[in-house]
Amino acid sequence: VNIAVFGTGVVGRTIAAKLVSLGHIVIIGTRDVNATLDRVTPDPQGTPPFRDWQQQHPQVQLDTFKTAAAHGAVIINATSGGSSIDALTQAGAENLNGKIVIDVANPLDFSQGMPPSLFVSNTDSLAERIQRAFPETRVVKTLNTMRANLMVDPQQLAGGDHTVFVSGNDTDAKAQVTTWLKDWFGWSDVIDLGDITTARGTEMLLPIWLRLWGALQTPQFNFKVVR
Amino acid sequence: VNIAVFGTGVVGRTIAAKLVSLGHIVIIGTRDVNATLDRVTPDPQGTPPFRDWQQQHPQVQLDTFKTAAAHGAVIINATSGGSSIDALTQAGAENLNGKIVIDVANPLDFSQGMPPSLFVSNTDSLAERIQRAFPETRVVKTLNTMRANLMVDPQQLAGGDHTVFVSGNDTDAKAQVTTWLKDWFGWSDVIDLGDITTARGTEMLLPIWLRLWGALQTPQFNFKVVR
Repeated sequence: VNIAVFGTGVVGRTIAAKLVSLGHIVIIGTRDVNATLDRVTPDPQGTPPFRDWQQQHPQVQLDTFKTAAAHGAVIINATSGGSSIDALTQAGAENLNGKIVIDVANPLDFSQGMPPSLFVSNTDSLAERIQRAFPETRVVKTLNTMRANLMVDPQQLAGGDHTVFVSGNDTDAKAQVTTWLKDWFGWSDVIDLGDITTARGTEMLLPIWLRLWGALQTPQFNFKVVR
Repeated sequence: VNIAVFGTGVVGRTIAAKLVSLGHIVIIGTRDVNATLDRVTPDPQGTPPFRDWQQQHPQVQLDTFKTAAAHGAVIINATSGGSSIDALTQAGAENLNGKIVIDVANPLDFSQGMPPSLFVSNTDSLAERIQRAFPETRVVKTLNTMRANLMVDPQQLAGGDHTVFVSGNDTDAKAQVTTWLKDWFGWSDVIDLGDITTARGTEMLLPIWLRLWGALQTPQFNFKVVR
């Protein structure tokens, strides 16, 4: 499958690396290709510069949001939540319409310090904003409730015995994404929560997720819905 | 232990019945004792009138919030979130100060229809409001993330292999409540999330909890933090 991954951070890199290892053709989209490649120092969180990472993953291409989206039969949004709408706008609706947009971003607001709060929640969500801004896309929210390495390799933890959620208005798109979650990444417990408004529920998991990271002193955990 | 349970709904009743079965002396607090006892028809959710329930649980006493709080060495707040501050105000700070207040309520806002949203979230929480309003109490938020019968009997589900959280500013109070969760109810996995602001995280679990109830067609489930 031709895939666009939006975002050059840890989440985008982790997903892109996994997908090319499966034989997919992946273009990572970024705002400014030269600016992304010009960075030579780790970011404040210690993430190595993109070009260092890309040298170890030469099959992953880097291009603009627009070129990546035109390439992708599916677009995976792994940008920071605050820049997601802008990234998709730069991609252009003509390169998105009719396609599945897998939204893994979270609306984290770091402006008030740590831990971050959410810049949209409760009566709206980032996924809903994306769906409203690009009504001809088929937005499926998923994978936003665990760290990146578990997104693409849930077997790393408890043999994969934990849960991932999908939210979206398009039943066929959710079924397709569910198949991909199982076939690409090895997820076994995928719960369809309902329409895109149910993404409020998964985005609002972030506050407890962030505090669990602090309490457990590791991000290597996930929620399982026991029933 | 002498215990006050605030709230005459399913949660308050379930907790009170469990506690008297363990030999504790429990007074349920209510706004207006006569009004509570005068109800003879089920509420809109089908909950039977309190007096029918009390006939089957004669050891559970019913009295005002004030009398219940004066009796209790610990107060369990199982009122609806929207009336919690008012209930505690009626109880009187003089009957609460120095005591542990176990807050199991959720700030559900039904005014916009179903599923409810939260009337406080993200940058504040009901538990924090209670702690600020009654600074001499020791508020511990817990048990607000699963249905009532699982609160008091987690073994009903998967042999108890799922998680309950505690949040609060007072370390000793959290340790005491953790002991009660284990000894009274049989919880085995209790995670201390940190100070009372971490109650934002557990209260914000309600939106996904409500949607899971819809998706799974049963409220008999709970979250397990797999790590």
